[in-house]
Amino acid sequence: MKYFDEIQIGDTYALGRHTFTADDIKAFARRFDPQLFHLDEDAAAASHFGALCASGWHTAAIWMRLYVDHRRGMIEAARAAGLPVPALGPAVGFRDLKWIKPVYVGDTIEYTSVVTDKRLSNSRPGSGLLTITSTGINQKGEPVISFISTTFAERRGEPG
Amino acid sequence: MKYFDEIQIGDTYALGRHTFTADDIKAFARRFDPQLFHLDEDAAAASHFGALCASGWHTAAIWMRLYVDHRRGMIEAARAAGLPVPALGPAVGFRDLKWIKPVYVGDTIEYTSVVTDKRLSNSRPGSGLLTITSTGINQKGEPVISFISTTFAERRGEPG
Repeated sequence: MKYFDEIQIGDTYALGRHTFTADDIKAFARRFDPQLFHLDEDAAAASHFGALCASGWHTAAIWMRLYVDHRRGMIEAARAAGLPVPALGPAVGFRDLKWIKPVYVGDTIEYTSVVTDKRLSNSRPGSGLLTITSTGINQKGEPVISFISTTFAERRGEPG
Repeated sequence: MKYFDEIQIGDTYALGRHTFTADDIKAFARRFDPQLFHLDEDAAAASHFGALCASGWHTAAIWMRLYVDHRRGMIEAARAAGLPVPALGPAVGFRDLKWIKPVYVGDTIEYTSVVTDKRLSNSRPGSGLLTITSTGINQKGEPVISFISTTFAERRGEPG
């Protein structure tokens, strides 16, 4: 795993894929976004979406899950190899969150996060700030979600 | 309910309050954001947050739920009064999503959405676009989340 100092613009994290099922879409919607086009096939067919589709927040939350799992895998691999585990996070916010196309039942979304900028932090001298651009792309190659996040990343300490 | 034409900058929607319980925080985190400071009190106490706190996506998803419930209430009231129900949505995206402070167990967040801009839509002549600024404020009066969304709103048709 890399410290802030070694992370380069263009570094890419392939977070993996997730297939959205009708049950998952409805379960999320019942709790957090109970609009009919996320809950009921017939109502969705009559809506501007044309078919049951996932809440945009669901699509975003799955990114978070895959991101956490991906990072956990990296941490475990680093620990197993006896390597340091630089701190990453917390995220300070997100911008330009766009739901570009609906995510329908059965769609498989592939999530990728790319480091698109880096700078030192004024408020935390031991950290830098990474700008990360994340996208989800469906099985047809169409982007369905994109957003930009900013997160703290630990700097390599000065040699003792 | 108002058509786009009658909605004014400054129109405010009081969406109500939500209290975050430890069970809810952990259930969301297990599914979507399994970081230890969202899952385990002891690990959270040792983290930079200092105590168990909600995933930022959870805080955002609760806004969505309250927003949908609020709108549903307005729709039902309009229908009961025999008034028209102008279409609103879909949202086309969010920007400047900021998690300003952690949301801890027992915190009660009050959510408010304010229309902060409006303009006609080029792509949908029958709609306008609303810019809506939403905030969540805890029981101490501290903002914990804010973001800006853009959503379509139906225009009043020309009289027939």
